[in-house]
Amino acid sequence: MDMVVDTDFPDWRTKCSIHSKAGSILHIPREGGFLCRIYVDLGQVLEDDNGRIRETPVKKVIAKANEIYHPYSIDVKDVAWSSVYEVGHRLVDAFDNSNPDNPDHHPHVFLTGDACHTHSAKAGQGMNVSMQDGFNIGWKLGAVLSGQASEKLLLTYHGERQPAAQNLINFDKQWSTLMATPPELLEDPQAVEKFYVSAEEFAAGMLTTYEQNLIVGDTTHQDLATGFPVGRRFKSHKAMRRCDAVVTHIGHEHVADGRWRIYAFADSPAPGEPSKMTAWADWMKTDDASPLRRFTPAEGDDNAVFDIKGIYRQGHHDFELFDAPDVFFPRMGTLSLTSYENVYAALPGEDIFAGRGISRDGAVVVVRPDQYVAAVLPLEDTAGLSEFFDRFLRE
Amino acid sequence: MDMVVDTDFPDWRTKCSIHSKAGSILHIPREGGFLCRIYVDLGQVLEDDNGRIRETPVKKVIAKANEIYHPYSIDVKDVAWSSVYEVGHRLVDAFDNSNPDNPDHHPHVFLTGDACHTHSAKAGQGMNVSMQDGFNIGWKLGAVLSGQASEKLLLTYHGERQPAAQNLINFDKQWSTLMATPPELLEDPQAVEKFYVSAEEFAAGMLTTYEQNLIVGDTTHQDLATGFPVGRRFKSHKAMRRCDAVVTHIGHEHVADGRWRIYAFADSPAPGEPSKMTAWADWMKTDDASPLRRFTPAEGDDNAVFDIKGIYRQGHHDFELFDAPDVFFPRMGTLSLTSYENVYAALPGEDIFAGRGISRDGAVVVVRPDQYVAAVLPLEDTAGLSEFFDRFLRE
Repeated sequence: MDMVVDTDFPDWRTKCSIHSKAGSILHIPREGGFLCRIYVDLGQVLEDDNGRIRETPVKKVIAKANEIYHPYSIDVKDVAWSSVYEVGHRLVDAFDNSNPDNPDHHPHVFLTGDACHTHSAKAGQGMNVSMQDGFNIGWKLGAVLSGQASEKLLLTYHGERQPAAQNLINFDKQWSTLMATPPELLEDPQAVEKFYVSAEEFAAGMLTTYEQNLIVGDTTHQDLATGFPVGRRFKSHKAMRRCDAVVTHIGHEHVADGRWRIYAFADSPAPGEPSKMTAWADWMKTDDASPLRRFTPAEGDDNAVFDIKGIYRQGHHDFELFDAPDVFFPRMGTLSLTSYENVYAALPGEDIFAGRGISRDGAVVVVRPDQYVAAVLPLEDTAGLSEFFDRFLRE
Repeated sequence: MDMVVDTDFPDWRTKCSIHSKAGSILHIPREGGFLCRIYVDLGQVLEDDNGRIRETPVKKVIAKANEIYHPYSIDVKDVAWSSVYEVGHRLVDAFDNSNPDNPDHHPHVFLTGDACHTHSAKAGQGMNVSMQDGFNIGWKLGAVLSGQASEKLLLTYHGERQPAAQNLINFDKQWSTLMATPPELLEDPQAVEKFYVSAEEFAAGMLTTYEQNLIVGDTTHQDLATGFPVGRRFKSHKAMRRCDAVVTHIGHEHVADGRWRIYAFADSPAPGEPSKMTAWADWMKTDDASPLRRFTPAEGDDNAVFDIKGIYRQGHHDFELFDAPDVFFPRMGTLSLTSYENVYAALPGEDIFAGRGISRDGAVVVVRPDQYVAAVLPLEDTAGLSEFFDRFLRE
């Protein structure tokens, strides 16, 4: 229930998990300084309850809450919203209508969110994971329907999101069980706090890992960029945008536009000097086998499909913007203007090369439209890059 | 002019001031990655020009810009906006229709912004200073028209904003002159850069200083809070909000609601213990001479006129929220709910007491609705606080 109260409970504005002999409350202050949402555990529902628990009157829930808050108490002034529900852990068999016996049958019906997975509300994951379902199928449908990608791409939706939902349900069972355990039965009185803190990265969605598939490469070259694990969310880092000397969280520049991001992390030579980076950039810009040349429609922006960024080890005072190769200056829009914002320099105090474990030989990091790392490749492995996109993109 | 171009000028996306033999440009990249605004100095206007300079065609301005950018050049693809104008330095005699010979005649006509002061656009101050004019007269009119304050308050508008405008014009003359000086005549080639950096605090509006007047106290007790100079903008600092342990920039909580902020900085004893702070808080809450009791309408929120915050030296784990005195828990709104957000603890690494030079004896810092520091007083000087508000507030 969401409510405003008079209370002597000193932590009213602090998120907390309360375990007392009378039961447990998850207490979450809401915006605005007064309103608070509390999840009051009403205990185990009997097998033959048949939904009668849902008719529990608000007064009874408030009385239960007061038992749990004791020796503090709440005098409820207004209930803005309330709901009584049972927690069920359920997972759908398939997220689509594909046929495992016939991999050439491409699915055209997809389920997302609550239609696929149900669990408790206590980890705040329901909406988050459901939106990730939606984004996952969304960009794939867009790519297939626009003719950019092969229909095979759609098979990866179930393949990626079903395990993610299973992991969430496993996590939620652990968390709900812990929340419902009477404090005297916990081995460690701080067990709940410790679990919550340890689960932070999971709850932030950064631990979802997609296994190798059509659009997730292998981990052969993971050592070139240890801070960008293949199959996980791209974890942003700061760098200095060369054109305007703005300190930029590079991942925060990603927009939901269905484009692929390709980060080229340089080897040691400065921009413009002969190097693996320069060779890669020239190949990308001019070679007929380059995905940029093969898959970018002739009539559109140079960066319509691939958003290519170059990141250098040199400080931003140590080179000029236009020292960087042409591939980082795509032309865009009706006036065919040059985009200047694709060249970055490492920051002295917060070096992205150190922060994300980039090899001295540089690396190419391919990031999907949904921000998952698709591949890590050596700058020299242009064939590997060609082959990766050749699997699912259409010329 | 605002425009998009093809160019080989490597600093196109960087704010810069360009001085070359052909003249000067102030170059300001705009939002979106492509557009740039440039101020092209067309030189001295002849006495008998009579506005003909304003008919200068865009082509001619572009040609002049190219001379100045040389050896780089711009190929203009689109001009989004342009204007040719002369810079005039003008200041109105009076910001209102008050009569210096008759202080009982209260002004009822007020001028603000461009109607009072004109100068160059090069310091980006025109809109900023004009909005400050507007805010200054706005809250004063509100206070007088609602019956909260005496009409005398209105006399402080001209008294405060006319000198501020004069200072701006003096500053702008210096800055324009420097920008127009040919580089070979500058004593130091970095003179422009140095002036710009040194003027940062002025340009941010933090150096405007209102002299002692009806609503700006004297500086007798300035040593109790050296980081909050009386008559200047309140310079925010971080502290830990006790109720929810949120690190808060206290000044960012100010909203434009016409209320006065009173910050009570504690002496050493902990919240609730006998102290100057506790005595002040009790006096404020209960004494008939307290401005809170005298000037707060009986039918409204407890904090309708005064937004009172208590800031303690103790860390937020070292005391409980409700240890703090009642005056910091005003009741508000139709349900008469308690506001919990008025008690702060100093942060260990960024102590507001050290950061703003607060005395060991504590201090009361009064902040006006427009964020200017109105008074610094000892916690014990309750008479001084009464007297200050008694000058212009109405019961």
